[in-house]
Amino acid sequence: MTDNGITNINISLQHADEIINQALREDVGPGDITTDNIIPEDKTVSAFMKSKEEGVVAGLEITERVFTILSKDIKWKQHYNDGDKVKPGDILVEIDGPHRALLTGERTALNFLQRMSGIATQTSRFVDILKPYKTRILDTRKTVPGLRLLDKYAVKAGGGTNHRIGLYDMVMIKDNHIKVAGGIKQAVEKVRSGLASEFKIEVETSNLDEVREALDSGADIIMLDNMDNETMKAATELIQNKALTEASGNMSLERIKEVAECGIDFISVGSLTHSVTALDIGMYIKD
Amino acid sequence: MTDNGITNINISLQHADEIINQALREDVGPGDITTDNIIPEDKTVSAFMKSKEEGVVAGLEITERVFTILSKDIKWKQHYNDGDKVKPGDILVEIDGPHRALLTGERTALNFLQRMSGIATQTSRFVDILKPYKTRILDTRKTVPGLRLLDKYAVKAGGGTNHRIGLYDMVMIKDNHIKVAGGIKQAVEKVRSGLASEFKIEVETSNLDEVREALDSGADIIMLDNMDNETMKAATELIQNKALTEASGNMSLERIKEVAECGIDFISVGSLTHSVTALDIGMYIKD
Amino acid sequence: MTDNGITNINISLQHADEIINQALREDVGPGDITTDNIIPEDKTVSAFMKSKEEGVVAGLEITERVFTILSKDIKWKQHYNDGDKVKPGDILVEIDGPHRALLTGERTALNFLQRMSGIATQTSRFVDILKPYKTRILDTRKTVPGLRLLDKYAVKAGGGTNHRIGLYDMVMIKDNHIKVAGGIKQAVEKVRSGLASEFKIEVETSNLDEVREALDSGADIIMLDNMDNETMKAATELIQNKALTEASGNMSLERIKEVAECGIDFISVGSLTHSVTALDIGMYIKD
Amino acid sequence: MTDNGITNINISLQHADEIINQALREDVGPGDITTDNIIPEDKTVSAFMKSKEEGVVAGLEITERVFTILSKDIKWKQHYNDGDKVKPGDILVEIDGPHRALLTGERTALNFLQRMSGIATQTSRFVDILKPYKTRILDTRKTVPGLRLLDKYAVKAGGGTNHRIGLYDMVMIKDNHIKVAGGIKQAVEKVRSGLASEFKIEVETSNLDEVREALDSGADIIMLDNMDNETMKAATELIQNKALTEASGNMSLERIKEVAECGIDFISVGSLTHSVTALDIGMYIKD
Amino acid sequence: MTDNGITNINISLQHADEIINQALREDVGPGDITTDNIIPEDKTVSAFMKSKEEGVVAGLEITERVFTILSKDIKWKQHYNDGDKVKPGDILVEIDGPHRALLTGERTALNFLQRMSGIATQTSRFVDILKPYKTRILDTRKTVPGLRLLDKYAVKAGGGTNHRIGLYDMVMIKDNHIKVAGGIKQAVEKVRSGLASEFKIEVETSNLDEVREALDSGADIIMLDNMDNETMKAATELIQNKALTEASGNMSLERIKEVAECGIDFISVGSLTHSVTALDIGMYIKD
Amino acid sequence: MTDNGITNINISLQHADEIINQALREDVGPGDITTDNIIPEDKTVSAFMKSKEEGVVAGLEITERVFTILSKDIKWKQHYNDGDKVKPGDILVEIDGPHRALLTGERTALNFLQRMSGIATQTSRFVDILKPYKTRILDTRKTVPGLRLLDKYAVKAGGGTNHRIGLYDMVMIKDNHIKVAGGIKQAVEKVRSGLASEFKIEVETSNLDEVREALDSGADIIMLDNMDNETMKAATELIQNKALTEASGNMSLERIKEVAECGIDFISVGSLTHSVTALDIGMYIKD
Repeated sequence: MTDNGITNINISLQHADEIINQALREDVGPGDITTDNIIPEDKTVSAFMKSKEEGVVAGLEITERVFTILSKDIKWKQHYNDGDKVKPGDILVEIDGPHRALLTGERTALNFLQRMSGIATQTSRFVDILKPYKTRILDTRKTVPGLRLLDKYAVKAGGGTNHRIGLYDMVMIKDNHIKVAGGIKQAVEKVRSGLASEFKIEVETSNLDEVREALDSGADIIMLDNMDNETMKAATELIQNKALTEASGNMSLERIKEVAECGIDFISVGSLTHSVTALDIGMYIKD
Repeated sequence: MTDNGITNINISLQHADEIINQALREDVGPGDITTDNIIPEDKTVSAFMKSKEEGVVAGLEITERVFTILSKDIKWKQHYNDGDKVKPGDILVEIDGPHRALLTGERTALNFLQRMSGIATQTSRFVDILKPYKTRILDTRKTVPGLRLLDKYAVKAGGGTNHRIGLYDMVMIKDNHIKVAGGIKQAVEKVRSGLASEFKIEVETSNLDEVREALDSGADIIMLDNMDNETMKAATELIQNKALTEASGNMSLERIKEVAECGIDFISVGSLTHSVTALDIGMYIKD
Repeated sequence: MTDNGITNINISLQHADEIINQALREDVGPGDITTDNIIPEDKTVSAFMKSKEEGVVAGLEITERVFTILSKDIKWKQHYNDGDKVKPGDILVEIDGPHRALLTGERTALNFLQRMSGIATQTSRFVDILKPYKTRILDTRKTVPGLRLLDKYAVKAGGGTNHRIGLYDMVMIKDNHIKVAGGIKQAVEKVRSGLASEFKIEVETSNLDEVREALDSGADIIMLDNMDNETMKAATELIQNKALTEASGNMSLERIKEVAECGIDFISVGSLTHSVTALDIGMYIKD
Repeated sequence: MTDNGITNINISLQHADEIINQALREDVGPGDITTDNIIPEDKTVSAFMKSKEEGVVAGLEITERVFTILSKDIKWKQHYNDGDKVKPGDILVEIDGPHRALLTGERTALNFLQRMSGIATQTSRFVDILKPYKTRILDTRKTVPGLRLLDKYAVKAGGGTNHRIGLYDMVMIKDNHIKVAGGIKQAVEKVRSGLASEFKIEVETSNLDEVREALDSGADIIMLDNMDNETMKAATELIQNKALTEASGNMSLERIKEVAECGIDFISVGSLTHSVTALDIGMYIKD
Repeated sequence: MTDNGITNINISLQHADEIINQALREDVGPGDITTDNIIPEDKTVSAFMKSKEEGVVAGLEITERVFTILSKDIKWKQHYNDGDKVKPGDILVEIDGPHRALLTGERTALNFLQRMSGIATQTSRFVDILKPYKTRILDTRKTVPGLRLLDKYAVKAGGGTNHRIGLYDMVMIKDNHIKVAGGIKQAVEKVRSGLASEFKIEVETSNLDEVREALDSGADIIMLDNMDNETMKAATELIQNKALTEASGNMSLERIKEVAECGIDFISVGSLTHSVTALDIGMYIKD
Repeated sequence: MTDNGITNINISLQHADEIINQALREDVGPGDITTDNIIPEDKTVSAFMKSKEEGVVAGLEITERVFTILSKDIKWKQHYNDGDKVKPGDILVEIDGPHRALLTGERTALNFLQRMSGIATQTSRFVDILKPYKTRILDTRKTVPGLRLLDKYAVKAGGGTNHRIGLYDMVMIKDNHIKVAGGIKQAVEKVRSGLASEFKIEVETSNLDEVREALDSGADIIMLDNMDNETMKAATELIQNKALTEASGNMSLERIKEVAECGIDFISVGSLTHSVTALDIGMYIKD
């Protein structure tokens, strides 16, 4: 959507509208009984949104849409784009429009914007640490039910890279699949014969024997799950770029530098989306 | 739903199904291509969910429903109820059913359960501190879009008290409403004449003059917004139980004891739902 | 929506569109086979709606929306607003637009407008009788399934006051609840401990003993159900403005004057919405 | 559905569920806050519905479905069927089930049952008067938006006959169509050439010249709109069973006998559905 | 929609949008990952659609809507209308708009246009053969699930005539109904007494005895099912315009001339919609 | 679903129900007026479905679901499974259940079954020719709007292999993308940098130069579009298993043998789903 390359996860207008309407329905229900009784219907007003923290902003287009769904008379002057770094006090956007729409939509708009910016901000902290390395940060499927595309969009805005969207767009063979199939090779073969060649195959491994077996089976990506640094280093030497590698398992800001130095291609971080701290952004009506 | 009194926010089956179907649609899409190609359709299996952290569990019924939507052959033996405290290693539930359904539903189920338990756990920390006081913990409208009822249900499971559900079920007069109306009194009167007597009226105040005006206008609840302890104490003395009081504004675990000692009735905490840390719960298939 | 204060029940555009689309789907189905075969697609025409009875009009915006959903080329010149009194022969609105859209939408439009105006008209008769008193007319939940917000909007347009919207926005303790709880006091306490202080509490009573108990329990509103005038008078003296009073039970145009004179605050009238006589309004195409 | 022949308007379970869910959503919303806080979840109870008026009952199956959607543990013993005459005091149905479901569903259930029985009752009054004649009572499209099939089902239950369901299942040529086409003959021809022979054609007439033209054009049914008795009698003599006849225009209980004596086949009565008086039916919980 | 008389099956904008959105959702899902990563968001482009075969075009308005749903900046210059004959090389439409929208919508748009044009084309071949006769070509209910109105619209565009839309808008008595009723007469009577006179009645017959019985029962249309030419001729002589006749049963381009010469009114052809060959139409982006 | 390996495209019950309900709504609408007036509600009956042609059957589970949605009392004894070859006269399934449900659902059921079996049958003809070769048959996105998953499921049942489901689960770089990117290499790089390594990349080529460039860019699959046999042979020699190959462009039963002999991995055939001939299957009620 912006020109800094955040294009992979594409939130279509229909999808955005569906989510926003659901959010407005649950917040506004049969009406904002305070605002509708106090604010005259034809009063217009100017407002702005301001960051109170340092971070990376994401979700401004969704936020705009919350208000334009509530009123056709919204004017929206955006000072920053999704993916931009902001400092405390930065004005993100100026908004003109009906006073009622601005008050009624404020909370829903901020609920989207603060969460998405919180995800982008935390992602950017991981990404910044990895700047000197080839290693990239991946998101996971540990997103809030109903908001996966928004959560993943925000990861991308923070400089992260999107892993598979769901269970349908990539093969991920885990220990359970392997046990039932009778081995990694058998599991990979079963998938290959069922699926033509359309999908990339990732195999989860927890020791060097499994890494070797995954490599032999021709896996495109090998996940190194909960390994220590030494094992990971041994694994990447074994693999020697014949497959991509993903490190996984409680990856923290403190640890990822060492992991990157093992020569890993991707580090996936579930907490980016399952444990979000909202970025503090406020909305203010001008007098 | 359980007999420990968590009944206020009532998640109807229809509402639960709508949210869960939406979550399954976004995760499973046209199919779990890994599981469907490896696991035989008629294979059944036993599994369990285990807490890896200390906390308060919430969302078990929603979690069960994820699996029963995927298969009619799920058996669900629950060892704990929503609102129960759990320790690391506690088995929350045993599940028997088709291997495919358990693998395909696992992530969606845990996304619900971990978030809801995270909310209940953090709420219970606030509630525990306030045990010696009359003061109660309130949630806010700062919830994840689409999941308000689940978020509020989880607050309740953690011992918290639910504030208004949306803009429609209670009057909350904020500074903006007051400015447009020309004063607190005028704002309250406008609402009263428009709304019969059905709805309670809460007024937001930021200093003692406003508290006085709110009191004179007959507000049912007076919100003390971002006040220091001294001002809050003065306010509660002024109000003398002629209205209820709610303290608001970045209320942390560290500060709430002092606030309670000011004689406040309610403390509302936005971070309970806008900045959630998931409770670490795992799902395991038995061999 | 209009400036005569009808703002409480707020029919959002989304809600209106949902109801109107449902109505058009059931009436038009796969097509108006008469009009589509006879009237040329590009023919435009002028039309108007005329009241054939004295009454209060309501639903004009909904009516306009029926036509604008059918065609983007509708011009709508409204002579009256929702809540206005009209006489036989009064032109409510002039409409220009495609002949087909006007014919196809006519019946659906009138079905909305005649019902809503019928409700507003009958409400205004009750309201007019009570002009000399403080007593206000309330609606009930006895509305047509699917049209509650429209029905209540029409009551408001007729000068009435809206009671609770549904089971979720106000507490109403009836005889059944009281029996199970073991008394009015116990019922009120159960609700209070479960619900914080957000919701007003109304208690249904049928004799003076119950009125006393309700008063002691701190009910905000006391419903006097099916009492004779004498009992109601005694009740209001007992209550002495410590709670609001609502008289209920087959309240007719003939009786409400006496009830108002008992000092009652509200009279609720189910027949306003459960037994509606449509206001006779016609639509005419100009030659 | 019952064995007295009410089979024409077939309310499918899907359609019923859609309407009922919509009704429950608007009444119950996020929860019945009174009942859920007072009535224990596992309490069961017996109840019954009783008519307080003489009339014809309709909508019992819809009413049952309201409760079975709310709980799977409803037992429903019906004493009467749709279309049966009932007297004051007659027990329509006995219901066993969860106390909460019965209280929460009561109003929605009665809103359906009272309206539908009101329609059936009034229809039966018209039908009874016409017993000695061949003339049958027709409904119209003047139904409540969203409930057309239920309204028409109720007319049938009262002994009436259903006219066209919407604009799509029968041709009805009105004055406006005739003017644009340049005459009745031209209008009928246009429809015939556009529609094959699938649909019956009815033509609206207001004087004998038009009746003659309609007859010549081969109309299947001729509507005699707002004619006096004399003209109607002349019209039926002219038509001599070469087409069916429908009398229309403010047909009241007082007038229809004379109209029937003119030899008319059908009398259509808009007020059956646009101005309904609910039948007084109550629901009672047994102690 | 166009002025060549294709007006019977009326595809409302709402219906079209529902179908198109469903189609886009299944094709685009979370995003066109190729186009979104390569084509800049603000790039615009010119394109055109060209027929590669001789045929009759249908579905151009649906096709336009696919693109206008994807982008508000589409310009659409149509050279032909639905129902027009086209030759190889004919440019059907020129389109200007965002490059992304054109690429993302191309396949969905062509899936509609090629199928509908395929139906119209094959229909026109049947219609052309019957030009010298009164006999008309009918479609059937053998359409693709979800697209009945589009399929029937395309038949009409090809010069065909639409038979009943579904099970609800016309009576069609088949052998099974007749057996259960105990004869054609009884079946017709049952329907007549249940349905007033609104619906035309068609009876399926397979020999001359049944034709006679259908005629006696007053059927409006008599279907001659799988009869040889001789029997059909005998049947039409028997019927002598006292009812309309429809020939049915594997009617091919080769056979229909002889059938028409039997004096049949309608020939219904299931393969028009159950076995469609897409018309070859391509979309090209200009350099 | 069956044990012959048809598991890739997984039609979830929710998805099936959505499509089937849509189909029933458009066919049955407000009711099957013929059946409901003639067949008694409680009459049950036995029926069977019989193939009248040789082919491969697909869609039996969908077909069963049509009837079980209409009635809970359906008994379904299936003699063949999806993917099985059938001969004329083979009984596919025996059905017991309410006479009404069987008649009302017959057409919708057959519309699904005949189309899906038609697709499976034609696919199996292509697959049979390629038995001696490694080459596999692929479907395309040229499916009927709304039925993509069913269409692709049927291809699989016929022995075919499913290509990408939509625009979201695989990268397919076409000439337009290449032009805008400035070359195949640049296009592939843009996608790679935007998409991590999750998705396989296919590049469309039309001559040997493009094949070389695609190979150099590391494409996973190279599409040989509209090439003659000689060029295809040269291309496969060039590629030497460093990428997979897909031949595309009007591939007919006549031509595919030669194409397979060029050493191609996949042949994609749009006509499998865009130009379907229904398999002739009938449904019969037993006397």
